[in-house]
Amino acid sequence: MKIAVDAMGGDKAPHETVKGAVIAAQRFPDDEMLLVGDEKKIQQELGTLKDVPRNVTIHHASQIVGMDDPATYSIRQKSDSSITRSVKLVANGEASAVVSAGHTGATVAASTLCMRTIKGIHRPGIATRLPTRHGMCLIMDVGANIACKPVHLLQYGVMATVISEYAYGIKKPRVGLLNIGEEDAKGNEFAKESFLLLSNSNLNFVGNVEGREIFDDKADIVLCEGFVGNVILKFAEGLAVSLLSTIKDEAMKGFWTKVGLWLCKPPFMVLKNKMDFAEYGGAPLLGVNGVCIICHGRSDSRAIYNAIRMALQIAKNKVNEHIISAMEKADGFSENAM
Amino acid sequence: MKIAVDAMGGDKAPHETVKGAVIAAQRFPDDEMLLVGDEKKIQQELGTLKDVPRNVTIHHASQIVGMDDPATYSIRQKSDSSITRSVKLVANGEASAVVSAGHTGATVAASTLCMRTIKGIHRPGIATRLPTRHGMCLIMDVGANIACKPVHLLQYGVMATVISEYAYGIKKPRVGLLNIGEEDAKGNEFAKESFLLLSNSNLNFVGNVEGREIFDDKADIVLCEGFVGNVILKFAEGLAVSLLSTIKDEAMKGFWTKVGLWLCKPPFMVLKNKMDFAEYGGAPLLGVNGVCIICHGRSDSRAIYNAIRMALQIAKNKVNEHIISAMEKADGFSENAM
Repeated sequence: MKIAVDAMGGDKAPHETVKGAVIAAQRFPDDEMLLVGDEKKIQQELGTLKDVPRNVTIHHASQIVGMDDPATYSIRQKSDSSITRSVKLVANGEASAVVSAGHTGATVAASTLCMRTIKGIHRPGIATRLPTRHGMCLIMDVGANIACKPVHLLQYGVMATVISEYAYGIKKPRVGLLNIGEEDAKGNEFAKESFLLLSNSNLNFVGNVEGREIFDDKADIVLCEGFVGNVILKFAEGLAVSLLSTIKDEAMKGFWTKVGLWLCKPPFMVLKNKMDFAEYGGAPLLGVNGVCIICHGRSDSRAIYNAIRMALQIAKNKVNEHIISAMEKADGFSENAM
Repeated sequence: MKIAVDAMGGDKAPHETVKGAVIAAQRFPDDEMLLVGDEKKIQQELGTLKDVPRNVTIHHASQIVGMDDPATYSIRQKSDSSITRSVKLVANGEASAVVSAGHTGATVAASTLCMRTIKGIHRPGIATRLPTRHGMCLIMDVGANIACKPVHLLQYGVMATVISEYAYGIKKPRVGLLNIGEEDAKGNEFAKESFLLLSNSNLNFVGNVEGREIFDDKADIVLCEGFVGNVILKFAEGLAVSLLSTIKDEAMKGFWTKVGLWLCKPPFMVLKNKMDFAEYGGAPLLGVNGVCIICHGRSDSRAIYNAIRMALQIAKNKVNEHIISAMEKADGFSENAM
């Protein structure tokens, strides 16, 4: 399989993106990594690496989407950007998946425009796995769609269920709705309408999930609209850093607490690894005709490698084909809603 | 001043609520605590306590709002509940403030209905202080209003600024808008419209604040609509517990890490105290004609005492009067919006 890697996307591009793709090429010799971006710069990066295998090729793209570019501008004015080029390789059938740590909005917009949505899907959404004490909780959507309707949320439920079953190995995943109360009739109009749609669906719907309960193993999947999902994802990052820094700052104030902190390094490392986004690689944009993995802007080579691994897993397990048949089955349950 | 304390509200009522009110009565001998609820039960609780001062009185209320009662039902069918009775004492001028750890929705509904909103304020909102590494960040609204409009958010900005100045001692507090990007034009329609209103106001508006940046001392106040605010507040609780449990679970696996954890007890205690809602007492419902403090359902006597302390502080500093004059000044800036 061929994976288009946006070599220019992310804070550490092209150095880390090229390195990550090369590692993936070494570990997956039967697959091919297409490095998309400034040919000269990519060539230069490859020159610094040892043992670049043959399954790495370069696809030139003359432009780069800046982090401050509005998504729509990037689509209209930068048609030769590394993001659009990468996406087009998938849209044209020259690659099976795209991996990008660049501008999220531009990647979502380009993917939606060029690959188009899967039959029946109104809007694509991003699904992110959040580590909890009990394992992982898949949150969808975390920011692809900020004009979310209840029917979109239902479709996210279908897609999140399929990826949980076929890529993450969870049988009959429990689907919850992020809400501000546990009772059925709670929440705003959007939540109430979504609750009704999900209750009448063929999903394994377990009801409302409060913010706190995301960590309580109440559901494998928690659905929410993109604005809320994006806020809590970033909030989680901020809070985790704030908590751990407070412990560290306080521990450094005394001799014995300093010793204690040093002895506690292993448990802190376990937590750090668990929370490390690089370990998970990225988050799939589900609902487009093709595989698209959105990576964190700060991705290093390990994150890029893991994102490529995830892209291969999703493509090889034919997640999109399963989404199509799941949508056909779901249609019977909620024809009016769709 | 007289403070109406809902003696029956909360998981630990009436034991902890009565105890908290008695402690407050002892420490504030010039003020009076009106314990509202089942006279017999309150009498019984008082009987178990030593040195109940004279400034504690009982106001009988025959009903209790259950945690599963819908807010509207509680108002219509339970007019003699401890919540409604407490609120009415303020509305009738018999008390200056109400403190309740009972059903939040019922307390908000009763306060809005009986006390009515301050002139010019469309909807009351709850303001909660979130501890960060750098101090505190005031989040408003965290769930009083789940049908929030941009103009409500602007008014929350005015009220949050007043309480920060007159009760928390922050001069010219920086006001931020919770959004999913730092750039001015980012976010959903609600966020974009709110951004414009806030930009044209006389508030010390510092722009968009991402979820992560709540912890970065970018703003003293972060405004958001009630659904999002409630989700992140509860999410914070869940995440903090999950993170600390992971460290503890891992540390208990080895001898030296166990020793390390024991030595690290002081920094963990600092963090625990910092995050302890009981320390802050409760969150004010701002925008009603009277002082209303909403407490956590799990409040103990210390939380109730601190909530009473906060109620006295807000009432004595005439926060509501300052809100009225701040609203008059704000009107000049955004007549169309109001």
